[in-house]
Amino acid sequence: MTSKNAFYAQSGGVTSVINASACGVIETSRKHGDQIGTVFAGRNGIIGALCEDLIDTSRESEADIAALKNTPAGAFGSCRFKLKSLEENRREYERLIEVFKAHDIGYFFYNGGGDSADTCFKVSQLSETMGFPVQAIHIPKTVDNDLPITDNCPGFGSVAKYIAVSALEASFDVASMAKTSTKVFILEVMGRHAGWIAAAGGLIEDYDIPVLVLFPEIDFDQDKFLAAVRHKVETHGYCTIVVSEGARNADGRFLAEQGTRDAFGHAQLGGVAPVVANMVKDALGYKYHWAVADYLQRAARHIASASDLEQAYALGQAGVEMALAGENAIMPTIERVSSSPYVWQIGRAKLADVANVEKTMPREFITEDGFGITAECREYLYPLIQGEAYPDYDERGMPRYVVLKNELIDKKLGEFEL
Amino acid sequence: MTSKNAFYAQSGGVTSVINASACGVIETSRKHGDQIGTVFAGRNGIIGALCEDLIDTSRESEADIAALKNTPAGAFGSCRFKLKSLEENRREYERLIEVFKAHDIGYFFYNGGGDSADTCFKVSQLSETMGFPVQAIHIPKTVDNDLPITDNCPGFGSVAKYIAVSALEASFDVASMAKTSTKVFILEVMGRHAGWIAAAGGLIEDYDIPVLVLFPEIDFDQDKFLAAVRHKVETHGYCTIVVSEGARNADGRFLAEQGTRDAFGHAQLGGVAPVVANMVKDALGYKYHWAVADYLQRAARHIASASDLEQAYALGQAGVEMALAGENAIMPTIERVSSSPYVWQIGRAKLADVANVEKTMPREFITEDGFGITAECREYLYPLIQGEAYPDYDERGMPRYVVLKNELIDKKLGEFEL
Repeated sequence: MTSKNAFYAQSGGVTSVINASACGVIETSRKHGDQIGTVFAGRNGIIGALCEDLIDTSRESEADIAALKNTPAGAFGSCRFKLKSLEENRREYERLIEVFKAHDIGYFFYNGGGDSADTCFKVSQLSETMGFPVQAIHIPKTVDNDLPITDNCPGFGSVAKYIAVSALEASFDVASMAKTSTKVFILEVMGRHAGWIAAAGGLIEDYDIPVLVLFPEIDFDQDKFLAAVRHKVETHGYCTIVVSEGARNADGRFLAEQGTRDAFGHAQLGGVAPVVANMVKDALGYKYHWAVADYLQRAARHIASASDLEQAYALGQAGVEMALAGENAIMPTIERVSSSPYVWQIGRAKLADVANVEKTMPREFITEDGFGITAECREYLYPLIQGEAYPDYDERGMPRYVVLKNELIDKKLGEFEL
Repeated sequence: MTSKNAFYAQSGGVTSVINASACGVIETSRKHGDQIGTVFAGRNGIIGALCEDLIDTSRESEADIAALKNTPAGAFGSCRFKLKSLEENRREYERLIEVFKAHDIGYFFYNGGGDSADTCFKVSQLSETMGFPVQAIHIPKTVDNDLPITDNCPGFGSVAKYIAVSALEASFDVASMAKTSTKVFILEVMGRHAGWIAAAGGLIEDYDIPVLVLFPEIDFDQDKFLAAVRHKVETHGYCTIVVSEGARNADGRFLAEQGTRDAFGHAQLGGVAPVVANMVKDALGYKYHWAVADYLQRAARHIASASDLEQAYALGQAGVEMALAGENAIMPTIERVSSSPYVWQIGRAKLADVANVEKTMPREFITEDGFGITAECREYLYPLIQGEAYPDYDERGMPRYVVLKNELIDKKLGEFEL
């Protein structure tokens, strides 16, 4: 059997476990040295392929590759760079194939979300017609949990755990202070189109915490919201609000946009939390605190979910195994067998069915009033945050996160202008 | 020997380990049942004493009291309520003594920061002259780390660990994204007058991360700051900024105040991170992300420092032991014997020397350019974040935090108007 090299790249926003998928890809490839030569990783995602900036992962030690499992973010660099459509920019696809040819790359592993699945699909369709067939496998990754078909996406479970635990802890804090000080705490979480991350904040209701969740899927109704806040504070003494950055009015405008301006009158992007805080203060006069978790949530390897980590690795491994079995244009998925006890297995989806489909929260996961999550949603969420997968710490008290050597191989082709 | 009851209260902003001090007070008192009858906890801090809302901690199980060690925030409720000066409001002090008399309370344990030390000192001075001597012991607690004499304050080490780990993780994230997206990440941390928490963010320079810290102790110089940001981005590709909420201009005005306004033109308090973000964008055009950790940092029991937790407990225990040894008007302290290996012991400070003194960062802990921490500061900080003291988690993946019964005893006195 002829051996081919592999290309692996990380795409889009990174997560606390995307490196575990990289680890799964590289370790599994190393076990099949007869079929896979070298795994080249793209320096800064697909840009690394276009610019022929290829990292030779065979120069990394076994220990360092294993340590990827415990290291957040994208060890090879990621990028926000969407390949244009084939009609608009055929040269980008041709360049990819040219680079793959030059470096004898027969496997293309693309680790990303919805846009990346689309790119991966196009590569899978094109390579053959361009005279150099490459098997293209998409490894799912997105904290937004918005890919279709797969039960969930690696990265999400860990953010969900971070948000649930953080919202719980901050709520204990507010409860302590509410008598004479802060009565409303607002936590802004990621999720521009889908409310999955915000939903995780809703889990703290199981601790009898008065919590309201604002989802992008539910039109924001200010009067109803303020009445709900007032009711929580009057009955519990305080209220926690978990708001998705994508919360929006009925007209589709983001709440964050109606938002804040700096001293010079410039509109300020980001920050729906202060908008909600001011709304509460103006209407109800409650003292508030607000937090914006931003990158802290998706990078929080220190509180990663064990089931998420395991799945991230397993999907990287499965991607390689599927490639070796001759498959193309697919994405390994998580199939849920049962929630309690939590049993899952690896499935597969055709990239044609994945690309450009966005999975938002089903209405039946959101309570009728629009401010909470249902029992069905809890049953879905809890398995994904199961288990604690702590990284190692050094004697100083800091986590042992690995930084790879990331040595580039010699280029064989000319420059490419992005 | 006559047994007296004890009063314990939590004061001011809570921390992730203040309940460990409560645990130390209660467990140690229980061991000395011949001298200490019941520990009454104030419902919502000192207000509980004034209003005779006294929680009978003897009705809590041993297991629940032990679980306080693993539970963030103030289990009995805290308050932001500063007793007025004796001249202004003698009736508050008289009321305290009246309540102590009515419930045979001979020990007053007050768990707080600088203001609380002052209150505790006044109680210690007054009780005897009012005909009911009470031994008043202050148990230090503050995430701000700004109490004098003690080497450090319980609560600080855990926030420092949270900020160092979170800034590290987010920096790994930014490094992954910087090629095509976010180049500057801004993390706002607590510390209105002292930069201790911000200093913890400076530790990540040990991972070769380009980080700038903005301290309240250093006048903000916008031109110098922007030049430093540009230099970091040009040499490293990205930059992390850790900014204290108390960062201020040379004229003493908080950066946050020059800050943002909502759509109606109202000044928005809180949020120095977006102010810095806009400054960077306007001057340098870099894409940014910003986070405001707010309560998440001080409630983050899930990533508490083991040495901090141990000291919080030890200081509660020491407070009781000192009271039993007949002491009054003192605060147990942490004395550092050596940094490496980390050795500490319990000391003591007179409350007269503690009250109303604020310990800010010494200039020699801050680098000459004002944007980083020195080797001396690192040597000070690392021991405080040593060790991971994880709470237990349940099978669903959520921490087991205890909620006490908090049963109030019957009142013996009339109402008191606050």
